[in-house]
Amino acid sequence: MEQSPYFFPRLPEISVNPDGELMLAGHPAHSLMERHGSPLVVILEDALRRNCQAWMHPAANGIRFRMYYASKALLTTGVAALMHQEGLGIDVVSMGEMATALAGGVPPEMVLMHGNAKDRAELEYAVEQRVGRIVIDNLEEIGRLAEVVQAAGIRQKVFVRVTPGIRPSTHRYVQTGQQDSKFGFNLEGGLAEQAVLQVLRHPELELVGLHCHIGSQVLETEPFVAAAGRMLEFYAHVQQELGAPLDELNLGGGIGIRYKDSDAQMDAASHMARLYEFVAKWCGEHGIDCPLICDEPGRSIIGETGVTLYTVQSTKRIEEVRNYASVDGGMTDNPRFALYEARHPVAPAMRMLDRPDQLWSVSGKCCETGDMLIHDVEMCELHAGDLLAFFSTGAYTWSMASNYNRVARPAVLLLGKDREGLLARRETVEDLLSLDSVPDWLR
Amino acid sequence: MEQSPYFFPRLPEISVNPDGELMLAGHPAHSLMERHGSPLVVILEDALRRNCQAWMHPAANGIRFRMYYASKALLTTGVAALMHQEGLGIDVVSMGEMATALAGGVPPEMVLMHGNAKDRAELEYAVEQRVGRIVIDNLEEIGRLAEVVQAAGIRQKVFVRVTPGIRPSTHRYVQTGQQDSKFGFNLEGGLAEQAVLQVLRHPELELVGLHCHIGSQVLETEPFVAAAGRMLEFYAHVQQELGAPLDELNLGGGIGIRYKDSDAQMDAASHMARLYEFVAKWCGEHGIDCPLICDEPGRSIIGETGVTLYTVQSTKRIEEVRNYASVDGGMTDNPRFALYEARHPVAPAMRMLDRPDQLWSVSGKCCETGDMLIHDVEMCELHAGDLLAFFSTGAYTWSMASNYNRVARPAVLLLGKDREGLLARRETVEDLLSLDSVPDWLR
Repeated sequence: MEQSPYFFPRLPEISVNPDGELMLAGHPAHSLMERHGSPLVVILEDALRRNCQAWMHPAANGIRFRMYYASKALLTTGVAALMHQEGLGIDVVSMGEMATALAGGVPPEMVLMHGNAKDRAELEYAVEQRVGRIVIDNLEEIGRLAEVVQAAGIRQKVFVRVTPGIRPSTHRYVQTGQQDSKFGFNLEGGLAEQAVLQVLRHPELELVGLHCHIGSQVLETEPFVAAAGRMLEFYAHVQQELGAPLDELNLGGGIGIRYKDSDAQMDAASHMARLYEFVAKWCGEHGIDCPLICDEPGRSIIGETGVTLYTVQSTKRIEEVRNYASVDGGMTDNPRFALYEARHPVAPAMRMLDRPDQLWSVSGKCCETGDMLIHDVEMCELHAGDLLAFFSTGAYTWSMASNYNRVARPAVLLLGKDREGLLARRETVEDLLSLDSVPDWLR
Repeated sequence: MEQSPYFFPRLPEISVNPDGELMLAGHPAHSLMERHGSPLVVILEDALRRNCQAWMHPAANGIRFRMYYASKALLTTGVAALMHQEGLGIDVVSMGEMATALAGGVPPEMVLMHGNAKDRAELEYAVEQRVGRIVIDNLEEIGRLAEVVQAAGIRQKVFVRVTPGIRPSTHRYVQTGQQDSKFGFNLEGGLAEQAVLQVLRHPELELVGLHCHIGSQVLETEPFVAAAGRMLEFYAHVQQELGAPLDELNLGGGIGIRYKDSDAQMDAASHMARLYEFVAKWCGEHGIDCPLICDEPGRSIIGETGVTLYTVQSTKRIEEVRNYASVDGGMTDNPRFALYEARHPVAPAMRMLDRPDQLWSVSGKCCETGDMLIHDVEMCELHAGDLLAFFSTGAYTWSMASNYNRVARPAVLLLGKDREGLLARRETVEDLLSLDSVPDWLR
């Protein structure tokens, strides 16, 4: 079989048929669009489950672990249900994410609540629903949470979020573990110790562990190891000097994925093997019990399993300047180029074998020059009616979608080999108007 | 009365009471939050109507004109209804915007449809609803629209969108009139002439005018004059050499607003006086009838009339690094900092007289470092529970809002002196889950 010259994730669920059409889990791209409309976000179920399983079966060496799916990557009730089937818990940061996880059938005990700006209603809801863990992020939250927990007459398991002072190589918008962060308490400045001491003064708060998160889309394991080293030191200190019977250490965030050919290919198993080996060795050398290790993979679980299909609505050749292909979506369903200049792999879904001999920029339908999906990428000749596939769009696209220009959000389809079902239906015009009202005097 | 040291739009509807509380149209900020919840987008009705009237009464010199509100700035059915009361038409680019304008009671004749990626369903809907003008943006659209119009058995008034090759001083994401644009047809390369000739071959398309748009948030009139000059030359050429009985010239886009003290204060009346004077003079000199001039102000009508009120949920002082105040909103309701590093004026709504002696960065509630509303701005000491007001948030904030992290969109309140009514209600958890479904096999 001829090989497609386009770069896309090498998953068994993504292939090209002899006619040059993109096949997703055995379904021709155009047939998916015919059934479900355009644009369409497809999530490849088998790949998604395989990724969950890769994180759920880390190279053993006796280390206890718990995985929380970082739901901000993509969350619907169906996604929550699938994660629960695969044994993962859910990491949430808002009332909406909590409610979705619970509606998806995730047991409250398996919900971990984050947030740098949790409001009282969210804390009350979390406590009332008996969410498993709440991660304390700032000093003002401690007293507020203690009050809420006391009023409920329970004890609440909590974490303290620590910024270990590691700045990995990734976009500055998704670095999270540096000192200068809206998240957590720093080690160097002593804020983390101060937070732990304050939490320990509240008997209704049960400090079970420490949390850190160094960033998203990190493509090497060593920054995680460095963070683990600093966290273990502090963990041992809190256990031994401050007398908190900690048992859990959350090392936050998963690993990066390949958006382009030159990106390193990481592998969850090797990543965890290296990390867990380090943790086991460190604990052995320092004579402490190995904590239960938690992790929060999101993008690395769902990112590559997503493919967004668009229909080209127009093309424009501006000689000696640029070729534009405008599609029926854009920053409204995938703001990653507008926000981070992120480049997703893209290919002409009906002509995957055609030589990419022209430079194209793919624009969205909003009335805004910044509404681009990618600049200057090589593809074959394009015309109105062509289908374009953007790959690795499972994470941080639909979940960040807007209705700018009152553009409807696309459907999200969960696609297995012999089954398919919507995770989210396409928005209708009625949906778009559902929040509106006309004050009396304007009628 | 003591003067507030904070910069905000000097509108009669925005004031500070002797206790140092921000007053909006005579209502204390905290009372609005109590009635309508936090965060809250307030639109000041009197200011909004005044701005509409400024654009609707341009310094006469006999020039005929029609104003279209650029609805992408902020559109709900109520906003559409108000614009119609004030005599403006509506500029739309999607099915959703069209439907909203019509549901708000705007007569179809006063709707102008734009778009670089209109799909067939949108064209069919526009024609079926008898939308007044459709702006042709690319060659492939011409035949498609002609088919749709022919099938409806009508004649459709159309414009051709031209990029005049003017690049004003503004953010590159909102420059729209340069040659390298996803929008329209260039003059220099001859695409505009080609488009006009193609349109003229379709008798069901009635070419009534030409359109250009040089960009958004432009703070000087001269680039508009330069664009008008180029457009008038082409207008005369199309009329005289190509035989099209044009009568309208749409000079697109309004003017910029003051986001900071040092921004120029523009004034719609002087802007239009200068522009219209130029147009009248040019037409006189070249012996052509003065066209009906259209404009599409959006930000300049609604931008300064919006104030977003947030509640601080936590503060964090990282010594020698930065102070963070985290609020109950963020990039979800105002992505302009994340997208363009746009800086809105901000002030502590309950302590408007307190000296701004500390540097604060205001972060949103999303689990993303990039979720910031502003970096390093001087304010007084802040604590959880404080209210913050971001000013000039009427345009391009709520309209671009997302549900990232399943954060609910805030309510939008239309606030007059003695009346108030919701333009959009606050999203509920039920709304957030309303598109979700759980495929059978995941139940």
